[in-house]
Amino acid sequence: RSPDQTPVGEIMDTDPKVVPASLDQEEVAHIFRQYDLTSMGVVDDNGRLLGMITVDDVVDVIDEEAEEDILRMAGVTETDITETVFEASKNRIIWLLVNLATAILASMVIALFDGSIQQMVALAILMPIVASMGGNAGTQTMTVTVRSLATKDLTSSNVRRVIGKEFAIAVLNGTVMAIIIGVLSYAYFGNMLLGGVIAVAMIINMIMAGLAGILIPVGLEKMDIDPALASSIFVTTITDVIGFFAFLGLASLAFM
Amino acid sequence: RSPDQTPVGEIMDTDPKVVPASLDQEEVAHIFRQYDLTSMGVVDDNGRLLGMITVDDVVDVIDEEAEEDILRMAGVTETDITETVFEASKNRIIWLLVNLATAILASMVIALFDGSIQQMVALAILMPIVASMGGNAGTQTMTVTVRSLATKDLTSSNVRRVIGKEFAIAVLNGTVMAIIIGVLSYAYFGNMLLGGVIAVAMIINMIMAGLAGILIPVGLEKMDIDPALASSIFVTTITDVIGFFAFLGLASLAFM
Repeated sequence: RSPDQTPVGEIMDTDPKVVPASLDQEEVAHIFRQYDLTSMGVVDDNGRLLGMITVDDVVDVIDEEAEEDILRMAGVTETDITETVFEASKNRIIWLLVNLATAILASMVIALFDGSIQQMVALAILMPIVASMGGNAGTQTMTVTVRSLATKDLTSSNVRRVIGKEFAIAVLNGTVMAIIIGVLSYAYFGNMLLGGVIAVAMIINMIMAGLAGILIPVGLEKMDIDPALASSIFVTTITDVIGFFAFLGLASLAFM
Repeated sequence: RSPDQTPVGEIMDTDPKVVPASLDQEEVAHIFRQYDLTSMGVVDDNGRLLGMITVDDVVDVIDEEAEEDILRMAGVTETDITETVFEASKNRIIWLLVNLATAILASMVIALFDGSIQQMVALAILMPIVASMGGNAGTQTMTVTVRSLATKDLTSSNVRRVIGKEFAIAVLNGTVMAIIIGVLSYAYFGNMLLGGVIAVAMIINMIMAGLAGILIPVGLEKMDIDPALASSIFVTTITDVIGFFAFLGLASLAFM
């Protein structure tokens, strides 16, 4: 609050925030959030004022953008309650077909080691654990990355540091999981070498998962593709393929 | 716009929206969104006006709530850029431990059929495809359900209809995927019975995935647990367990 006699010219904001009319709504929402604005001018290419955006318009935009991210990460397109069964089915089946292709790719990796599996059925029992843990760890990193990109907390200036941090988290958590599953596998199957093989495969896959979880969304963003889109399928494909390959490959080297 | 001589009493809103001070911020944001409000009064238990909430306060709330949903679905707690590696690692490892337990559960299902796998290694090659497709389909339904609950598009009055719709989508997409994988498996392994077994297992698992994807978040909401929390792990555990059980079980009946 200024003293009563202050002229308005001294307290007015002489550098009001304005945005060009062509700016993407997501960018506009980001500016509102960052500066806690309640309104902003809209100008044309010559800087002439065209109108005003107020914060209540931005509420819907923020909501829509977050919704879009969530749905795209799961491979679901924008939905509403009036959508028919056939529309919903058609929208989702594209993603399921992509997943089918990548699942077949992963199973081709398993097929490379059919001889090892036949000789040692414990490999078939344990292999989905390595893949599943990688998928989970990769999804965690990917989700944090997609949101950090959306809120612009992750930028080209700190991306190297964040990659280093995710790598460190992956090494730490991967080691803990490797020890647990290694000991359990040894206890159940009574084979120490098998316990060692699954432990090493687990660490490898969880590190690759962490790196995929950050590098895939960052790479998509660099290519001007929505980082939420497709990240999930790419990440789980990589963790499945590397999980099966690392575990069955190491087991073949160790036992065959 | 009213004619110049209209008294303000005739155009003012005599039923202004007010909320009790104890209301959850998520509810408040929902009211703002639903009625496109720019401000709302806050009252105490006796209906006395305590103050005012404006829409710019709500922007942050909406953003936070959507963020919370996204992160929780992936088993990541609220993060910020200043969090250390150890904090991030500790926050995420809880979820990884839960996933390890459920992955071990799924592998115990595989172990039930070790004899069948030893006799027919094609089962080990194909089984992750059934589980992976169920996981993907379940995640799609779960994501739509979690968002519909958050935006209150899904309520007790339409939940039966939405369950029916998700069931229909699952039958439709499950049948398409079953035909594709059935034909491919027959073509590759030259065994028509094997193609039939994987096709039937695929339909069963995708229907169960669709039902789990809606019933788990709805059930958590009923129990006053955030539907985003844990949904993902529960859904993929169910699709893994049922996927392995249906495929290996049917194969054992068919071949052994």
